[in-house]
Amino acid sequence: MAVNLYDAAHDLEKVIRESDEYKQLKQAYAEVNVDAQAKQMFDHFRQIQMNIQQKQMMGQDISQPEVEQAQKMVALVQQNDKISKLMQAEQRMSMIIGDLNQVIMKPLEELYGEMKF
Amino acid sequence: MAVNLYDAAHDLEKVIRESDEYKQLKQAYAEVNVDAQAKQMFDHFRQIQMNIQQKQMMGQDISQPEVEQAQKMVALVQQNDKISKLMQAEQRMSMIIGDLNQVIMKPLEELYGEMKF
Repeated sequence: MAVNLYDAAHDLEKVIRESDEYKQLKQAYAEVNVDAQAKQMFDHFRQIQMNIQQKQMMGQDISQPEVEQAQKMVALVQQNDKISKLMQAEQRMSMIIGDLNQVIMKPLEELYGEMKF
Repeated sequence: MAVNLYDAAHDLEKVIRESDEYKQLKQAYAEVNVDAQAKQMFDHFRQIQMNIQQKQMMGQDISQPEVEQAQKMVALVQQNDKISKLMQAEQRMSMIIGDLNQVIMKPLEELYGEMKF
């Protein structure tokens, strides 16, 4: 890969790392990580979430009890201030990454648009 | 999103657009697009490929006839110089995008690594 491609990617990486949103996300993670109760709750929540996502990706049905368990878990973890802060920080970061990807992928989208599959 | 995040993403977008690999891909697309026979063959191939990928993502089985049809199609399209050039250019571009993503996503990977789900 050409040097300037790497350079431009590393510049962007640095700007992400130095952004308020990344710093806040890092801080929010650290706060959950040092709180054993919050950490355990969050890990459990993430596990349930990942199971459901995996099933959805595989086209498998999500059972009613599973949906209810997940909804209860979301309501529960959101009552924890540290986890709720972390989830908000994750959402902000994920929106930023989505926005960045849209900008970076524009040249390719233009090409695929021309091809009209 | 902070201005410098957008700026850094736009810089990277510009470098991608000006890269040899992108220019070659664009050229290869254009050459297939103006060749009605190559275009039709490539569209058909891409359609078969996408059907298989979709089935794989849904966890569905790919039947033996489908595998054989896809293999025959790959062998066929690769005999077409313009398509074969396009597929090589696509592969190079896709490797570059993968490399760039690895660089850009490093700050987030570090965080998720710490969390150890």
